[in-house]
Amino acid sequence: MILDRFKVPKGDEVHVSEEALRTTVTAIFEKMGVPPEDAAIGADVLVMTDLRAVETHGVSNMLRVYVQGYRDGSINATPKLRIERESPTTATLDADRGLGIILGPKAMRMAIEKAKTSGLGMVTMHSSGHLGAVGHHAMLAAQEDMVGVCLTASAGLSVVPTFASQPMFSTNPLSIAAPAGKEAPVYFDVATSAIAGNKIRLAMRMQSPLLPNWVSDKEGTPLSQDVLVQDRRDYYQLPLGGTREQGSHKGYGFAMMVELLSTLLSGSSPIMLERGSGSKSHFAAYNISAFTDVEQFKQTMDDMLKTLRTADPAPDQERVLYPGLSEHEALQERRTNGIPLHKEVIEWFAQITAELELPALVTR
Amino acid sequence: MILDRFKVPKGDEVHVSEEALRTTVTAIFEKMGVPPEDAAIGADVLVMTDLRAVETHGVSNMLRVYVQGYRDGSINATPKLRIERESPTTATLDADRGLGIILGPKAMRMAIEKAKTSGLGMVTMHSSGHLGAVGHHAMLAAQEDMVGVCLTASAGLSVVPTFASQPMFSTNPLSIAAPAGKEAPVYFDVATSAIAGNKIRLAMRMQSPLLPNWVSDKEGTPLSQDVLVQDRRDYYQLPLGGTREQGSHKGYGFAMMVELLSTLLSGSSPIMLERGSGSKSHFAAYNISAFTDVEQFKQTMDDMLKTLRTADPAPDQERVLYPGLSEHEALQERRTNGIPLHKEVIEWFAQITAELELPALVTR
Repeated sequence: MILDRFKVPKGDEVHVSEEALRTTVTAIFEKMGVPPEDAAIGADVLVMTDLRAVETHGVSNMLRVYVQGYRDGSINATPKLRIERESPTTATLDADRGLGIILGPKAMRMAIEKAKTSGLGMVTMHSSGHLGAVGHHAMLAAQEDMVGVCLTASAGLSVVPTFASQPMFSTNPLSIAAPAGKEAPVYFDVATSAIAGNKIRLAMRMQSPLLPNWVSDKEGTPLSQDVLVQDRRDYYQLPLGGTREQGSHKGYGFAMMVELLSTLLSGSSPIMLERGSGSKSHFAAYNISAFTDVEQFKQTMDDMLKTLRTADPAPDQERVLYPGLSEHEALQERRTNGIPLHKEVIEWFAQITAELELPALVTR
Repeated sequence: MILDRFKVPKGDEVHVSEEALRTTVTAIFEKMGVPPEDAAIGADVLVMTDLRAVETHGVSNMLRVYVQGYRDGSINATPKLRIERESPTTATLDADRGLGIILGPKAMRMAIEKAKTSGLGMVTMHSSGHLGAVGHHAMLAAQEDMVGVCLTASAGLSVVPTFASQPMFSTNPLSIAAPAGKEAPVYFDVATSAIAGNKIRLAMRMQSPLLPNWVSDKEGTPLSQDVLVQDRRDYYQLPLGGTREQGSHKGYGFAMMVELLSTLLSGSSPIMLERGSGSKSHFAAYNISAFTDVEQFKQTMDDMLKTLRTADPAPDQERVLYPGLSEHEALQERRTNGIPLHKEVIEWFAQITAELELPALVTR
């Protein structure tokens, strides 16, 4: 598996239980001035992300960034979420510089409530901090027998459009989730860039090279060889596809789609026009029962997903996955055996809990 | 430009006016038993697609396929579009085996009307023939100051999921359109496969090789060299990304997204479970005014699109495009100078009009 290179190496990992991690992360958020209920939401998003083995967006990479944001004042610990426009199906929110991983679930709940009464609900939000793993928010709708969609145009200017020489977009991830019956729910969450931004951070920490056509040089030309990143600032990210020949115009278009539905539809300006304008996001819930019978939907989902899961793999491949299957398997395994964290992350926790005068993170 | 290899070679092309093409195509649909109003809709979709230079989905490749479908009875010339479920924001339609390019605009109009009164409108449709260029339908919403979305899970089993050995999806294209002020509207329409299915047909007609990682062999292994296709049945198509390393799991996920929103949400079965079940599609309109000020939206669109259009290109690149720019330029140029058709296509028109006892297509 290509992504094995990003896995925490055996021996360098320490396991912590879901509960222990929730306790410590919640306490850290509270020390940042976040109200207890909000702190619990933030911890839930991060811990669920680690349980799903989406390491790039879990505690290891992100919590220290959020702590830094609270400390330097770029994230508001007590935001007043303001409704700028609203209808029975829609709303536009000003996040008041609050952290996206905490406000995202609230925005998605609004979309879900609207979809319960009106069939569809769609909420856009601007001026927030980082939204975390967008798929987490989409899953909230799937748990209510809806199709959930969540996208975010985040704050970093990192992705070069096809044929351009400068970055114009962030990695603009996109997610969709839908419930099944017996099978794992579909949970599809991807950056519209060739790789997620956090994957570069992770690759640097692991000293693993990036693969060809994942990044460009500083003139926008795709790099067609392996790249061992020393300084992240030496490279720009490429859209999904990498090169025009392999479909980077599609990755670029998907980035534009996220910009339209998140930034433009929340009445704000894209990062290419207004630096430092925060994350803009899109939360949608489509009530399955407005379209068809929910039980039939889940039965068809089961049939489709099982067909994929049990399909004959290509030569040299182990098995066929579907989006959400490995996340679901990791969730079950890690709830039992704990979440593996790199010892460097454990050290960070030791340091921050000492600094904040909190009990140490309990490891197994 | 990579796609120049698919352009009609100079000397082999004959120009026809928009009006002449509309006249002949409408007349051919009518001879197939399609009511005059519907025939005009079908001709509009095909001719607009050729005007936008989306050759793969215009008259050259598609009209003969549709004629064949009417003749062999697989397409119903006089379908009764049946509403299976409906709410003020949603509807699920049974297309009664009617041609998608004719019923698609009707479904999108329903979504638009719902969005006018309710902010959002979403219509799913199953059991139709081919939907044509999905972007055309999305554009209908953009012309009404809405964001338009159109996706279709079509009837051909052609795309192999990542790591699988057999095709499980069609090319499942996805489109989004949104209005600007002075700039061309965003018109993004792509297959979620590495290339559109019709591009293989076009490449065969032009005897141009397919590029690496666009197709796999019959065991699902991506082919990493150029492929000159003699028999389309020797290959399967790969998801956008081509290989897992280059992100084919994302292309696969996008195909799944289209399946969820089109097939599952119309209460029908995916092609992998039910062969010959026709196209399933998704039409959505999001009323911009429900979220923000429309004029401000268009102003920001103009600023963003102009920034992209005028960005410095990477070395060896001519200019930076945005999704919809080249289609808009082609529309203007072809409305003036006519639509270039390959002489082989002109011959087909001569033959079919003679056969149907229609006046010949007027060329320039």
